[in-house]
Amino acid sequence: MTRSQLFARIQSKKSYLCVGLDTDPRRIPTFLRSEKDPVFAFNQRIIDATSAHAVAYKPNLAFYEAQGARGWESLQKTLEYIPTDCFTIADAKRGDIGNTSGLYARAFFDKTAAGLDFDAVTVAPYMGRDSVTPFLDFPGKWVILLALTSNPGSEDLQQLRITNYELRITDDETQVRRSQLRIEQPLFERVIQTAQTWATSDQLMFVVGATQAESLTRIRELAPDNFLLVPGVGAQGGSLEEVSKYGMNAQCGLLVNASRSILYASTDAHFAEAAGAEAHRMQQEMTRYLDAYLPV
Amino acid sequence: MTRSQLFARIQSKKSYLCVGLDTDPRRIPTFLRSEKDPVFAFNQRIIDATSAHAVAYKPNLAFYEAQGARGWESLQKTLEYIPTDCFTIADAKRGDIGNTSGLYARAFFDKTAAGLDFDAVTVAPYMGRDSVTPFLDFPGKWVILLALTSNPGSEDLQQLRITNYELRITDDETQVRRSQLRIEQPLFERVIQTAQTWATSDQLMFVVGATQAESLTRIRELAPDNFLLVPGVGAQGGSLEEVSKYGMNAQCGLLVNASRSILYASTDAHFAEAAGAEAHRMQQEMTRYLDAYLPV
Repeated sequence: MTRSQLFARIQSKKSYLCVGLDTDPRRIPTFLRSEKDPVFAFNQRIIDATSAHAVAYKPNLAFYEAQGARGWESLQKTLEYIPTDCFTIADAKRGDIGNTSGLYARAFFDKTAAGLDFDAVTVAPYMGRDSVTPFLDFPGKWVILLALTSNPGSEDLQQLRITNYELRITDDETQVRRSQLRIEQPLFERVIQTAQTWATSDQLMFVVGATQAESLTRIRELAPDNFLLVPGVGAQGGSLEEVSKYGMNAQCGLLVNASRSILYASTDAHFAEAAGAEAHRMQQEMTRYLDAYLPV
Repeated sequence: MTRSQLFARIQSKKSYLCVGLDTDPRRIPTFLRSEKDPVFAFNQRIIDATSAHAVAYKPNLAFYEAQGARGWESLQKTLEYIPTDCFTIADAKRGDIGNTSGLYARAFFDKTAAGLDFDAVTVAPYMGRDSVTPFLDFPGKWVILLALTSNPGSEDLQQLRITNYELRITDDETQVRRSQLRIEQPLFERVIQTAQTWATSDQLMFVVGATQAESLTRIRELAPDNFLLVPGVGAQGGSLEEVSKYGMNAQCGLLVNASRSILYASTDAHFAEAAGAEAHRMQQEMTRYLDAYLPV
């Protein structure tokens, strides 16, 4: 799915909601646990109830891997069940040396390899360019690079201050002077800048946690065109309005994820209706923000 | 497996070789491809041929995930086949927000979850402390944190210079002076320092690429007791002697990984003998370095 196709879906659904399919078998309602594949049975009902209000779905791989081979099968069935007009994200946070990242790319993008055909995968930047670029070899597929995450540990590395030296040449009447200008910036800003030398905004998004809304103005200066995947609204406490106000660009440029607040809106037999109602509530809020903040 | 148990195995086998089970189905000898599970059939023969010379095995998850649910089953059978006196590492390079990292920990450490029971898992540090500590909740299990990797992209983030300010208080006869001292250090050094506030050397190792041998003296200053997992010898060109000379500590403190140079030492019917011979050659070289460089 291209960037303009994604924006067209956002406009037609008046929503930039991504539903995080972080399905914990221990939190599936009791009456579904006798199903052959309870995780898939749960996901089916969640997708049915929310797909009118969401433009994207994002299964987090940890929840499936914790079930081993069975989990991988639930994931595959779930991905096939997601309506084709929705953008699909493997939230895998992978990253390895070049040839190995190439295999992860095949795992998530090449249906003939592992039976999966996601539109996008989340990638961790610590290993640098050759850990990221193999994912870009798949035309039409996306890398969503971790930049500034929503968790407490984001301050341990992402907020560290990097030192840059820029050469300055000044020239007055009598002589040319060379000097070094020392610039400090947080690591996540450097990640956002450097990654844009690897891919255009047609294949590269960034993860920016909703709990980091105060950084969005600066991030939009550095990455005006890239879509941002924003987790942390809902259970983690980020503000949807602030994210929308400071993060929206002319093509919306936002996919705001909610997982637990939708999946576990209710734990009884009506969990799917409750999930649908919560997704609808968020979609309606998003419709207001699209009217208010989308640049015309 | 505890640190002293691991050292005991190294002493008894006179080897600190880790065999990387990065099994690419496309490189399995033709005569094995008709087996029900060619990846497992290949791994079995490799393990049989190398287990006298190796103290650890490290399957890289990408190679298994690229096969989907089937790959997960090959991984599970392979792990069960590895002799119990060998240390086992899931080279997964995971890392997510706290509760999600907890699920990855279950996937790799809790046999009742996904059928896997590795001794250690590799973890990416970008998301910080709460992405790492859930793995430490499993007693006797290890985190192997990416520090300085062997690939070209390691310079993009890991080598960036971080600025630290330390408060200095000097006190002479007449007055107390406070000043700030600016210290710069590469990001990977900060990772090594910070991570040691999360775990002791009984649960924490670091990945340091063999192509970065010139950094090992400094790394040993920062992490004198931690084991280092060292990939990049062999196909990637790192020197086993340099790694051993600069990286060894009183408990050896090294697990040196070789993957392709062992797995694909030959591609014909004698691939297993060739793999065993290459592992034996490395083990004999390691025996010499243990004699030469292990502090007495």
